Amino acid sequence: MENCTKCGNPKIIIKRKQSGQALCKECFIESIQKKVIKTIKKEELLEKGDKVLVALSGGKDSVTLLDILDTFRKRNIIDICAVTVDEGISGYRQDGVEIAIRHAERLGIEHKVVSFKDSFNITLDEVMKIPNYRGSCTYCGVFRRWIINRAARDFSATKIATGHNLDDETQAILMNYLEGNVDNLTKIGPKTDSKSPLFTPKIKPLREIPEKEIGLYALAKDLEVHFAGCPYSEESFRGEIGQIIKNLSKDHPTIMYSTLRGFDKIKKALKKEYKSEFTFESCTICGEPSSNEICRACTFLNELK
Amino acid sequence: MENCTKCGNPKIIIKRKQSGQALCKECFIESIQKKVIKTIKKEELLEKGDKVLVALSGGKDSVTLLDILDTFRKRNIIDICAVTVDEGISGYRQDGVEIAIRHAERLGIEHKVVSFKDSFNITLDEVMKIPNYRGSCTYCGVFRRWIINRAARDFSATKIATGHNLDDETQAILMNYLEGNVDNLTKIGPKTDSKSPLFTPKIKPLREIPEKEIGLYALAKDLEVHFAGCPYSEESFRGEIGQIIKNLSKDHPTIMYSTLRGFDKIKKALKKEYKSEFTFESCTICGEPSSNEICRACTFLNELK
Repeated sequence: MENCTKCGNPKIIIKRKQSGQALCKECFIESIQKKVIKTIKKEELLEKGDKVLVALSGGKDSVTLLDILDTFRKRNIIDICAVTVDEGISGYRQDGVEIAIRHAERLGIEHKVVSFKDSFNITLDEVMKIPNYRGSCTYCGVFRRWIINRAARDFSATKIATGHNLDDETQAILMNYLEGNVDNLTKIGPKTDSKSPLFTPKIKPLREIPEKEIGLYALAKDLEVHFAGCPYSEESFRGEIGQIIKNLSKDHPTIMYSTLRGFDKIKKALKKEYKSEFTFESCTICGEPSSNEICRACTFLNELK
Repeated sequence: MENCTKCGNPKIIIKRKQSGQALCKECFIESIQKKVIKTIKKEELLEKGDKVLVALSGGKDSVTLLDILDTFRKRNIIDICAVTVDEGISGYRQDGVEIAIRHAERLGIEHKVVSFKDSFNITLDEVMKIPNYRGSCTYCGVFRRWIINRAARDFSATKIATGHNLDDETQAILMNYLEGNVDNLTKIGPKTDSKSPLFTPKIKPLREIPEKEIGLYALAKDLEVHFAGCPYSEESFRGEIGQIIKNLSKDHPTIMYSTLRGFDKIKKALKKEYKSEFTFESCTICGEPSSNEICRACTFLNELK
């Protein structure tokens, strides 16, 4: 039997293949919190006085994110508010929304639920009933980002924090490596700044935490979490790549970390070479920032009519 | 039944998933030759008057390379010589050596066979009988490169051409992406120049041709080729990555091309950011260029004593 590498407690809950470390519940929780704080400091994700809007779906990632960011709020470093997007997926979304509401109430933070129906007069269920050539995730992602970005302005938030984890980040990196999509690569990272004042900067404090450790954190802290999978989730290239990285990680437990480290160096070089000079204008329909005359959300809505 | 996309010949030998093109034997051969010539021009791999040393193992890649480069020799643009390395692998290498000799004689080009035994007084078979902690491919690669580089100087060659194909190149790129090895990434490419005058520049004219099309080219041109696999070939990370790319290519037939295109853009940025300033000295034992006092080949030989 192995004891906790840090405190000697014989009751360990994780044995990290990548480092050989064995940790008890308390030391595991502390290690995750410390690692997130390290990312926040290293990447300068937060400033004193920030009002951070957490994109809170109620899933393990966003609930863990809220839990850890809340330690900054308790120390009066930042203020937190949260938005939950209700895509209108019957039998799936309601549970997540209720969990999100309970977390926000428990912590006493400003929170609102914004639905596709209220914002666009159509639910995702309705979108999927219309013959269309885009995948559900494409519609959902574009509409969700539109809502979150607008909510950030309504809350006067200075940052938007999302629950992207190490698996998400590595998948995005590898997908774009394989697709040769250098332009997309320059947009991946811990912090997304945009030239437009209508866009609130986005931060990813969990980008160095593997997905399964986030699940374990939520469990260890006994956080109420929505574990159901979306009924529309597709067999996608991202899923295929995710499976490849998972398989590789079995024999090469540090591979997601080394991919991320390598990418961060590459990105530094890319940013100098490919200075993106987007000039954002306002969408002539909804007024949201857009690189074209009509933003993607309004383009999709037009198509669906 | 489909006819050749280019000439209408009903006897097609390949249907390219990546482009939808169907080609007959003659048009396929021509398309490969044109593609290699395009790479040579685009990347400026050859100059008029070059003396190109082909690293000729007798396998499909190097035999195809020799066949295509020979069209440049026949037009008096370049001169060609060849070297075959005999690693000393009984039951395997001899066939390849004999095939190489026959190709060189057939074309009437200077050719020599250099063995590990002559150069280092040890065969790979003997190396593998000594308890050692490096893989066979590590020894073989270092010793082989040593021999080829020295042969280039002996022949007064101005370029070394190797048969690396699209699969090889994509594997190397992906391996280093995943390992986060940015320094190695800067060394991958169609042309490897070194600051040391003792190193002859290396070129990879076949880097945009998929492995299976090279096999088909050799077959279509009825070139004698050594098809056996090395008995020491290991289960390696490279092999694992190769299998992943092969599997992905089934559903995504352009993935090796897009990976290569993306990498070439990334490399351009990396080269500016990470200017490698290697200062090569001569190995104090063998006199070959080395970034350390003793080169890797001599280090290995010392260990094996």
